[in-house]
Amino acid sequence: MRTSELTTPALLVDAQLLENNIRTMSDALPGTRLRPHVKAHKCTELAKRQAAAGHSGFTCATVREMEGMVRAGLGHDLLLANEVADASRLGVLAREGARITVAVDSDATIDAVARAGVAEVLIDVNVGLPRCGCPPEEAGRLADRARAAGLSVRGVMGYEGHIVGLEDRSARGAMLEDSMGQLVSAAGKVGGEVISAGGTGTYDLNSWATEIQAGSYALMDTAYGKLGLPFAQSLSVLSTVISVSAGWTVADSGLKALGMDHGDPSVEGAKVWFCSDEHLTFAPNSPLLVGDRVRVLPAHVDPTVAYHDSLYVVDGDEVVERWDVDLRGW
Amino acid sequence: MRTSELTTPALLVDAQLLENNIRTMSDALPGTRLRPHVKAHKCTELAKRQAAAGHSGFTCATVREMEGMVRAGLGHDLLLANEVADASRLGVLAREGARITVAVDSDATIDAVARAGVAEVLIDVNVGLPRCGCPPEEAGRLADRARAAGLSVRGVMGYEGHIVGLEDRSARGAMLEDSMGQLVSAAGKVGGEVISAGGTGTYDLNSWATEIQAGSYALMDTAYGKLGLPFAQSLSVLSTVISVSAGWTVADSGLKALGMDHGDPSVEGAKVWFCSDEHLTFAPNSPLLVGDRVRVLPAHVDPTVAYHDSLYVVDGDEVVERWDVDLRGW
Repeated sequence: MRTSELTTPALLVDAQLLENNIRTMSDALPGTRLRPHVKAHKCTELAKRQAAAGHSGFTCATVREMEGMVRAGLGHDLLLANEVADASRLGVLAREGARITVAVDSDATIDAVARAGVAEVLIDVNVGLPRCGCPPEEAGRLADRARAAGLSVRGVMGYEGHIVGLEDRSARGAMLEDSMGQLVSAAGKVGGEVISAGGTGTYDLNSWATEIQAGSYALMDTAYGKLGLPFAQSLSVLSTVISVSAGWTVADSGLKALGMDHGDPSVEGAKVWFCSDEHLTFAPNSPLLVGDRVRVLPAHVDPTVAYHDSLYVVDGDEVVERWDVDLRGW
Repeated sequence: MRTSELTTPALLVDAQLLENNIRTMSDALPGTRLRPHVKAHKCTELAKRQAAAGHSGFTCATVREMEGMVRAGLGHDLLLANEVADASRLGVLAREGARITVAVDSDATIDAVARAGVAEVLIDVNVGLPRCGCPPEEAGRLADRARAAGLSVRGVMGYEGHIVGLEDRSARGAMLEDSMGQLVSAAGKVGGEVISAGGTGTYDLNSWATEIQAGSYALMDTAYGKLGLPFAQSLSVLSTVISVSAGWTVADSGLKALGMDHGDPSVEGAKVWFCSDEHLTFAPNSPLLVGDRVRVLPAHVDPTVAYHDSLYVVDGDEVVERWDVDLRGW
């Protein structure tokens, strides 16, 4: 099958670039040094390629992702790097034999996990991003409480989400040192072996964490593309030109095919004007015709993938595989 | 079933507010004066309520929406208000007995429709939004060409998307007069009965169009909410509080549950700080606890609905129906 036969918009993944990204990362962070985050691709077939590169543990953001990974045979060591008020579906997975670890940052989330019959937790520590995570000085008390509730505390996690996207590498490094200092200090009070942190933007800077939760590196996006990392944008949205006017051109990828929180997507050799629900209005440097195909580069990979039900793996214009985006929803 | 039993994030539709919105609109634009746009809700069950209110024709933005409406028995008069480079799937629908009309704005899109065996078109005219649509002075020539290709030209369409969202009603009215003047002039050269235009923001101002393509009025969003229209926000995203810190609170609706092109969502009685993939960080006026439910109001309805597979119709905290969001994808 050729890409010209695909219904558009369609998510394309360049097979060679994906393989290079996975290999570059596994060379830098082999085996359990990387705990790939599946939220960036929501695709168990892609996760299997990461597992084949040596990474046996995975990170998830939702209960649905945890369930899907277990169903796909990838439940050897799954971390839900997120809090849940109700862990009952995770308890089901644990009873089925999957190794389930859940982030907790409060008495309420510890109680939810204990009640559900999940055995293992990480104490989630706020390392500077105002989101989930307890204050570092609370971490020891929460670990004690978790152990008192019968849970095994594997260690800590702390996501430096306010740092991973900084374009200045030296600023990233400096802020990271401060942020991870807090996490290491909390880890000392919590105990356990695991210090889980990091993302694609800090994968080679974060030497404090025992495991890095990077996810975007496999597919990449234009936001991370600005950081000069050794990962290529393997993901694009194949689109069809449907209208040509004097001064602008319209393709059929819009707000329902592209995550927009990081702004407009990019098109090589063109200036993007704006997106509508099902349209991308742009000005190409060279004229295009109705029916021509263009590859649109998303600004943010995670919410882009979540709009699509398939990833088409391509070698040039040949479609070599279709993978379900099977971890969508909640 | 109660909303407290739903997995979150979950799309809620207030049954009474939805009914009021549909009735208010059908009172203002009865029968075929309104051609409801399904792109805003992507739900044939909701479309059936619009049909029951007297609207027999519908507007779609994608081929998938057209197919889903035909399958749901709502194919009496469907307009694809968008160009397609390949109309073959629409030809299938026409041969199955559905009445299919397609927007065309170029020789290439006319040829695509004729080749596919679709019988009817509207000439799509650019009325000021730099997107699809031919220049007004081209409309007559395209109509001639379409008729020469054996197509029936029902008239024109011209979407004033640059006007519908203007908060100043008098500015909306003034710009609309200019925009619709161009469309009416093109209609004179094209012939046919139909002048299709308009949206929720101009539904009661656009007296030039013979039919209005409004869609957002049924569910609404905070962007349209600023216009002082007589439609209430019947849609919200039910979310669960998962983390509480000193100064902020986190719920489980993020970038994959909310269309973000119009900015952050709103939470009544709270200030929204930012969204992450699966998180909403906000500061509520009154303290919340882990496990509490909050209703998040999306900034833009269309790309929000496209992330979800179900709409839960609610009466207060009681879930009265679950509707599939069955028109997603392409």
